[in-house]
Formats: sequence, structure tokens, C-alpha cells
Amino acid sequence: LKEGKQDTFHEIIKELKPYDIAVQYKCLPVKHHPLFLDWLSMEELTGLLRHLSRDAQLHILRTIDPNRSTDILEMMKNNDLAFLLSGLSKTEIDALISEMEQDEMTVIRHIMDYPPKTAGRAMTNRYIWVHTSYTVERAIKKLKSFATLATYLNYLYVIDDDKKLVGVVSYRDLLLADPFAEIEDIMSRNLIQVNVLTKQEEVAKVIGRYDYVSIPVVDADGVLLGIVTVDDVLDIVVREANEDIEMLLASGKEIDFKTKPTVATYRRLPWLILLLFIGLISGSIISRFEATLETVVALAFFMPMIAGMTGNTGTQSLAVVVRGLVSEDMDVKKMLKLLFRELLVGIMIGLICAVLIFIIAFIWQGSFVLGLVVGASLFATLIIGTLAGTVIPLILHKFNVDPAVASGPLITTINDILSLLIYFGIATMFISKLM
Amino acid sequence: LKEGKQDTFHEIIKELKPYDIAVQYKCLPVKHHPLFLDWLSMEELTGLLRHLSRDAQLHILRTIDPNRSTDILEMMKNNDLAFLLSGLSKTEIDALISEMEQDEMTVIRHIMDYPPKTAGRAMTNRYIWVHTSYTVERAIKKLKSFATLATYLNYLYVIDDDKKLVGVVSYRDLLLADPFAEIEDIMSRNLIQVNVLTKQEEVAKVIGRYDYVSIPVVDADGVLLGIVTVDDVLDIVVREANEDIEMLLASGKEIDFKTKPTVATYRRLPWLILLLFIGLISGSIISRFEATLETVVALAFFMPMIAGMTGNTGTQSLAVVVRGLVSEDMDVKKMLKLLFRELLVGIMIGLICAVLIFIIAFIWQGSFVLGLVVGASLFATLIIGTLAGTVIPLILHKFNVDPAVASGPLITTINDILSLLIYFGIATMFISKLM
Repeated sequence: LKEGKQDTFHEIIKELKPYDIAVQYKCLPVKHHPLFLDWLSMEELTGLLRHLSRDAQLHILRTIDPNRSTDILEMMKNNDLAFLLSGLSKTEIDALISEMEQDEMTVIRHIMDYPPKTAGRAMTNRYIWVHTSYTVERAIKKLKSFATLATYLNYLYVIDDDKKLVGVVSYRDLLLADPFAEIEDIMSRNLIQVNVLTKQEEVAKVIGRYDYVSIPVVDADGVLLGIVTVDDVLDIVVREANEDIEMLLASGKEIDFKTKPTVATYRRLPWLILLLFIGLISGSIISRFEATLETVVALAFFMPMIAGMTGNTGTQSLAVVVRGLVSEDMDVKKMLKLLFRELLVGIMIGLICAVLIFIIAFIWQGSFVLGLVVGASLFATLIIGTLAGTVIPLILHKFNVDPAVASGPLITTINDILSLLIYFGIATMFISKLM
Repeated sequence: LKEGKQDTFHEIIKELKPYDIAVQYKCLPVKHHPLFLDWLSMEELTGLLRHLSRDAQLHILRTIDPNRSTDILEMMKNNDLAFLLSGLSKTEIDALISEMEQDEMTVIRHIMDYPPKTAGRAMTNRYIWVHTSYTVERAIKKLKSFATLATYLNYLYVIDDDKKLVGVVSYRDLLLADPFAEIEDIMSRNLIQVNVLTKQEEVAKVIGRYDYVSIPVVDADGVLLGIVTVDDVLDIVVREANEDIEMLLASGKEIDFKTKPTVATYRRLPWLILLLFIGLISGSIISRFEATLETVVALAFFMPMIAGMTGNTGTQSLAVVVRGLVSEDMDVKKMLKLLFRELLVGIMIGLICAVLIFIIAFIWQGSFVLGLVVGASLFATLIIGTLAGTVIPLILHKFNVDPAVASGPLITTINDILSLLIYFGIATMFISKLM
């Protein structure tokens, strides 16, 4: 295919969507890359970039002709650009955007000023606005002149003299309306908008609730700044879910199938070393009770079960809270209700499991007292584990920390330590009867 | 507000979006519910239902006038209806839809025939099709007559004489085209479609890749059956993420803030009882090595650490595989590459942690041999744990089982058992030197 047949190449590429072009590009031997890039049109190149990793994007921008790279930066959607630039130092950004037109540069610098993970970082300026005084005919004319821009959108945003967002008009409204009607009369004023500093998670919630394709972003004065589209929201939702899982399982940031072994090790290692020390804390608690353990070695048999159960009931509660916060807003009343629910759940689970383990321990080890000790410990630790898994993420949420950082490590440490203290504490109290 | 002022009520409700009506409804005391429902128009009632839980939907459908409930069922989007009905028995479904018109009934029964979690279950028939031979003018006319339907859509789907999908036309294309042009000449033939039996996860992948708002669903012959819209995909993505978390953390199905304590207990308990027995397996392995443990009680101090580390490195790998499969397609070459990567990661992590724990154990317990035993065990178990966390979900995926079921329990059991066997095995080998 790549024997210099530029015409056939163009014909094939023209039929492909950006994602497919990216797949082709990635499959190609590296030595063919420059020619492949050379032959792509600016639109195709911009589309291709969207579907590559940040490193690959930067590599391409540095290899190709500087004039072309400047044009591409200008054509990229603002939020993609912000994502690309967010990993670079100030001087690197300056070098990349130095060739750009003045106003494009200002826009980009502006976007980089919004805090990460806010609507400001996710929004794009590829939307079309019309003034309230426009007629339908004039709006359609404007729509036509921005035809490429309009591909992915369905709404025109209506602004007043102060550039404030006052309404929306869908393409459908335009189609159905009388050409001489004024936009002001056909627009819908009942609009949902988000502030530029709204968290992206929140934006995703709003878009999900109202089943929108895009949502306008305004500043504190109601001035229209950009829009967030549902395809970006889809990315946000997937990213948030992955981050939750990364943190809940302490599995390391942003590791995918293509991450290099050294990088994956580097990202996973901190968690594992943390867990190593957490394990040692448990170990040192056990060592405090060495005398008890030496007297009744059978106590060790139930250790993994008690620690494991307490850890898991805590993570169960944690998962409910963390994922619940994705779709629910929280207030004090709801928090107390949730806490009370989890307390009840903890008691019920504790009772059932305690009775079960009492019977098993009694039969297995033939000791009534050992059964009681194990059962009572499990009852207490399950209730405490459930509450810890609920209270800790709620407190973190209250202080605006992402509750998912409570994750494996924190909850597990606390629950491990508590469960071992309770277990060996109770066992030591009854040590004379256990012998 | 609810003192019988129907006019003010209508005025307020008219300004609200379905989601907000649902919020109001949920905040209302139960005794006002019937009146509230009575006063809503059919459209508002249908919108309200979308934002309630399945139980609440059924409750409403059973309380209101049978004639109204039949109308509502007819107005609901097919996929919402399929979701609502999927929890009911055959006779209950018959009772609910018995009043419906014949063809609507057939459509619903048809949707219920598709396997769960396929595109067929998620698609809606609220789309507009046009024939290739239509003129732009006629297409716009059809669009106008289906105005309410068209609110959420941006495309007309073009079919040929055999009802096969052959192209799409966006509202924008219609706006920009000459009214007398034939649809066949302005439509885009370069279309992305999915089969009716495609998994919903797959549909979400495709929509995410191509940044679409909706995607047409066809049968094996290419006949257009329905469309899946991006707002449903958003729901699917969130649901899939929650299911992954539920299974990875063994946290119980579909528990949210509103789940009753008894229900939450019932859903969480099976996992906990399973984990209880898993903990007892570990315990019985320890009991096999009772003699070793009695001789060197210090071995117990490192048990939680080794089991915890092995479990966690396994879950880390598991998380990478499970979430990676959400956005990546898998082939044998990629699998082998991933496996090799994880092997390398396991070796690196194992080496670093083993050296670290050797030093700590040596200093803490003052025994060179104990340090060696603990270090060597950790090295072996970390490699095995990493591989188990990679291989097991990949095998499950290969056999078309959702790899997330490999979850906490399965990986943890296997890793717990292996790590204790290795640890006590090595310790028993060196028992004479440990004393």
C-alpha cells in the first residue's frame, strides 16, 4: 500500500474516520510514519491526533513542519489542546504556541488558567452563537458559513448585548420555523447551564440527568464562554470511574495495556510499599500478643478470616459511598440516614457471621470458649469495619477531598489494626479459660 | 403549594425538566402523590417515570388509571420499557401490556427477546427514517410531523426498498441542502452501525470512539431496527463501571443510598460468607503448619503482610486488565505482550519488596535466616500474585465471561492459599535453622 501511490492512499483515507486512521497509523512500521503524516490533510491530521496518546501527539507535533503544527494547534478543540499542554512546562508551551495567532494564544492561555477538572478545562469554543435580534434566515446563514464546525453540534446558543447566554435554538427549531421570525421568539429560554468552575464530575451528572448532547458554560456574570459536549463527558465519566477503581484498589495511576513495565512498576510500587508497612503494623500488633499466641496457637487460624472480613465489609461500604456520590448530591440529613443504614447493616451482618463462625470454631477446634471469643470479635469488628468504611469517605467528601483516596490502604489499615486489637484483646481477657 | 391551585401548579411544572419534576415528586409527602400524578400531563408523567427507580415506576403504573398507564407504556422509550419489564414475571407483563395496541405489544415482546446487555435491549424505535428516493423537502415534512419525537435526535436514517440502512442525513445537511435534491444524493454513506446482538459495552466503545450522538442498530441482513442514543450509552458506561467496582470489591449488587438495610444486608452477605470460608481455608492451611508456627511464633508476625501484599498485587493486575478491556479490543498477540509485561513488573516489584522486607525482618527479629525466608517468600508470592491477577481475568475474557467476576474473592482466595503455602513451605524447609 505504501509504495508511493499517493492517489490510492488519499482515496482510502478519505473513507476512514479519524479513529480508524489512528489505528492504521499505530499499526504502521515507524519508518513509514513521516510519509503517512505528510500525505494527510490538515483535517485528517487533527482528527488523527485526537486518538493518540499525549506522548504520540507531542512526537508528531515535533516531527512535522512547524507551519503545519501551528495550524494543527489552531484547529484542535480547546479542551484537547488544554489536555495536551497540561503535561508540559511553561517554556515548552511557549515554544509550541509561539507561532500561533495572537487571539488563539490568548484563548489557550486562558483555558490553562482554569483549575484542573473544572468545566473550564473540558469546554470547547467550537460552538456557534447568534444574537437575540437575528432572524431565522440570518442564523441559518451563519450556520452555513461555519459548516465544518457545526458537524458535531445541534444547538445555536443565543446571547444578548452583554454576551450573556439567554437561550438556545436547536437546528430542528430552525428547520421548522418561519425564515423571517426573530430568534428571540423561537428560542427556548428554559436552559440548563454550568459555571466555568463547576467540577467536571458535576457537569457529567447534569448532562446525564437531562439527556443533553452539550451544555453551555458561563462565567459568574452569565457570559457564555464555551460548551461541553457529551463525547467529552463520556471520556470524563470513564476517566472518573477508572480513577475511583485505581484508588479503591490502590492499583496505581493510569496504567493501561501499553504502559512500559518500568513505568507500571514505578506507579504500583508506592502502594505496595505502603501496604508492606501496613502489614508490618499488623505484625507488630500480633507480636505484642506473642504470649497469648504462644499459649493458644489456634488463635492464628482465625486471624486471616477476621482481618479479611473486616477489611472487606469496610470496602463494601466504601464502594457504596464512593459510587453513590457519583450520581447523588449529599446533605447532612442524607448522610445521617446512610450512616444509620450502614450501622443496621453492620449489626445484621455481624450477628449472622458471628453465629456462623461460633458454630464452625466450636466444631473445628472443640472449644466453646474459643468459639465465643472468635464470634464476639467478629461481631464487633464487622460493625466497626462497616462504620469506618462509611464515615471516613463521608468526612473526606465533607472536606472536599475525593473520598476514593480513602481506598484500600487507609480503610484496610484502620480495619486491620482495629480487628487485631479487638481479637487479641478479647482473647487475652479469656486466656485462662482458653488453655 | 398543594392547596388545590391547579393553575399555578401547571405553570410551575411546565418550566421544569423531567429530572426536576422527579426530584419534586420524591420530596413530596406520600399522601400528595396521587393528586400530583393526576395533575401531570401524559408527557410530564412519562418524563417523570424515566427518573424514578423501577419499583417506584411500577408503583405509579399500578396506582393510576389503567387507561393512562397504558398510554404511558406506549409513550415510553422502548429501552426504558424493556428495563422496566425485565424484572417482572411473564404474567405481570401480560397484565400491564394487555391494554396496549397490537403492534406496540409486538414491538415490546420483540425487544424482550434480545439477550440482556445487547444493543437490542438498549435501542429505541424513536427515530425517523426516510427512503432514498425522498426529496429534501419531503424529508423535512416528515421531520415536522414527528416533531416531538425529533427533539433528541440529529439524524434521519435512510433506508432502501428492503428496509436496509444505506445512509444518514443530519438535520444540518437538510438545512444546507437544496429542497429539491434527492436524499440519496446528499446522504452520507460512510456509516457506522452495530448489530442488534452486539454487547452494550461494545456499543459504548464504538460511540465513544467516533464521538457520535446516536448509532443505528441493524440485524444480520442490514435492516434498520432502531438506534442507541448517547444518553443511554452514558447510563450504560456508568452502570458497567459500577458493576466492575461491585465485582472487583465484592461489594454486592446495586446498593445505593436508598437501598433498605435488609436488602443491603441480603446483597452483601453472600460475599461475606464466601470470604468467611475463604478465610477459614487460609486458617486450615496455617493449622497444617501448626508445628512450624509453634516452634517459631515470629512467623505469624509476617503472615498478614505476605497475604496482604500478594492479594493486592493481584488486584492491581486485575484492575488493569478489567478496565483495559473496557476501551481495548484484545487479541492473542496483545495478551502475550501484557502477560510478559506483568511478569516483568512482578519480578521488579518482587525484587524490591523482598530486599526491603529482608532488611526489616533481619533488624526487627535479629534473625538472618528469618529475613531470608520472609524475603524469598515475598519474592515468589508477588510474582505469582501478579501473574494470577493477569491470567485469570484474561482466561475468563477468552471464554466470554465478564473478567470482573474474578474479583476480590477468586483472586484473593487463590493468592491467599498460594502465599501461605509458599511462606510456610519455605519456613518449614529451614525450620532447623530458624530455631
